[in-house]
Amino acid sequence: MSKVINIGIVGYGNLGRGVEQAIKLNSDMKLVGIFTRRDVKSISTTNSNLYHISEIEKFKGEIDVMILCGGSATDLDVQGPMIAAHFNTVDSFDTHVRMKEYFDKMDEVAKKAGTCSVIATGWDPGLFSLNRLLGLTILPQGRDYTFWGSGVSQGHSDAIRQIKGVKHAVQYTVPKQEIIKEVRSGSNPELTYKEMHQRICYVVPEDDADISRIANEIKTMPNYFAGYETIVNFISAEEFNKEHQGMPHGGIVIRKGQTSAGTNHKIEFSLELDSNPEFTASVNVAYARAIYKFALEGKKGAFTVFDIPFSYLSPLSPEELRNQLL
Amino acid sequence: MSKVINIGIVGYGNLGRGVEQAIKLNSDMKLVGIFTRRDVKSISTTNSNLYHISEIEKFKGEIDVMILCGGSATDLDVQGPMIAAHFNTVDSFDTHVRMKEYFDKMDEVAKKAGTCSVIATGWDPGLFSLNRLLGLTILPQGRDYTFWGSGVSQGHSDAIRQIKGVKHAVQYTVPKQEIIKEVRSGSNPELTYKEMHQRICYVVPEDDADISRIANEIKTMPNYFAGYETIVNFISAEEFNKEHQGMPHGGIVIRKGQTSAGTNHKIEFSLELDSNPEFTASVNVAYARAIYKFALEGKKGAFTVFDIPFSYLSPLSPEELRNQLL
Repeated sequence: MSKVINIGIVGYGNLGRGVEQAIKLNSDMKLVGIFTRRDVKSISTTNSNLYHISEIEKFKGEIDVMILCGGSATDLDVQGPMIAAHFNTVDSFDTHVRMKEYFDKMDEVAKKAGTCSVIATGWDPGLFSLNRLLGLTILPQGRDYTFWGSGVSQGHSDAIRQIKGVKHAVQYTVPKQEIIKEVRSGSNPELTYKEMHQRICYVVPEDDADISRIANEIKTMPNYFAGYETIVNFISAEEFNKEHQGMPHGGIVIRKGQTSAGTNHKIEFSLELDSNPEFTASVNVAYARAIYKFALEGKKGAFTVFDIPFSYLSPLSPEELRNQLL
Repeated sequence: MSKVINIGIVGYGNLGRGVEQAIKLNSDMKLVGIFTRRDVKSISTTNSNLYHISEIEKFKGEIDVMILCGGSATDLDVQGPMIAAHFNTVDSFDTHVRMKEYFDKMDEVAKKAGTCSVIATGWDPGLFSLNRLLGLTILPQGRDYTFWGSGVSQGHSDAIRQIKGVKHAVQYTVPKQEIIKEVRSGSNPELTYKEMHQRICYVVPEDDADISRIANEIKTMPNYFAGYETIVNFISAEEFNKEHQGMPHGGIVIRKGQTSAGTNHKIEFSLELDSNPEFTASVNVAYARAIYKFALEGKKGAFTVFDIPFSYLSPLSPEELRNQLL
């Protein structure tokens, strides 16, 4: 494509920094500015232009796609519709129970404004959703399995940090290797999320804390840990700072199905990510390209990954794609 | 969707039988007829209607999508444009060097006729192509690897059968496990197809044949085996008939890339298929649904898997997909 796609980032946390990084790897894109609710003077960027979010409307006509990097819980609810009223947007909304409400709102606003929004991109929801659709459609007689991890669960880590006597904590969700093996090997077991995953915790206790009480409070915490195979490791602050600052994640989507009696097939899609926010950002950047092309074609409204052909994600032309990748 | 999609099958070999089977698993589809160039009386079907291909035009208006189950080498070249002039079509054209020529021809015919054709579906080209596009786009700084197998290569099996003294033969292309492990584990080696795969042959010799000569002729056969790690096993006709009548296949597409210095990611998509033709057929049936929807929307011309949103593959509505799978 000849024209450079002008990108804006809204929110400058881990995901926003990931998008800033990802744009550098895509020569058809240019980062015009990063928008934040915080005091601009308090934040250091690499070389990017940083603006207070109150200035965002000044960039109408200059920025082609805004990548919204806030969280579903609080930010996107407000920011999504507000920004979609002026710009094409990409977001990683991931609160499944409120997906319909959010989609409908974004669709209404974007249709009215003549903009395009893709919601709920990333890898789950996102690439994993695409693979669930593919498995279910190609092998309608079958069963699917999603394993998450190994990866940090921010919510569970926060929950541990609320316990008295805990200085630092991180929780990894880890799929059980023997269950993955069982699923891959041929049997199609019925499994719950709890049966498929372990919760492994690394906790730095306060100096005088009762570690057996902490371990017990973690393991019996309702909703978060009770009923799970939970392993609690107590470590030093030094080890915590050295070994547990990363944000790795990943997972596996497996579809197993039959096409006729005794004829079995397995489709498997997996991710191993050193950095959850950097990878999610890379997915969002590809969908920013797609939504830019949608807008050029005069499309309007909200879309999901299900609605977007893969050719729209790529900087290559349909002919180049056919010649190089088919 | 309310209306049933009426399907025709052109060609009644392994792939055609696979499509016949796959349609039974999709309640929104109905098989109207199977079309063959052979003498209809010479062929037994399950309960399907079988017609000579000369009758195909009578079904104009009655059949929504024709699934073309001939091979690229000879059949599709002729049948593709001929049938696309009257019907929406799906095919598994897989001769990469002639892809552009075939696409352009199908696009021209379909646009003129007001029909829709999706070419080169299946798993490679097809699902593997989609995953190569995804990997390249999301991780532009990286390298990808495609492993094929374990699976039967028809061309290599045929080549062995040309050797004097060979009664029956089958050749499996098998990815080398130690190379898969090396690719997955972190290094990004530069590898050729020959380095990544073994060729394992099962040969039933004639009673008086010189098996060391046969083994040598196989291993040194230019283009087919020379330069490959080739293993030749001589077996009895009984073992051959018992163990080597299936058509298993599969493979792995791996993309490894970096999003910033030292931050690595791996995307992996793999298939393990008991029956290559039944799985390919299942993919083609899903794309038949998509091309039916494309035609309903008034689209015209040739398309590939890159052009078709996943939502079009599914019998579920976009809203159902968002609610159930996102």
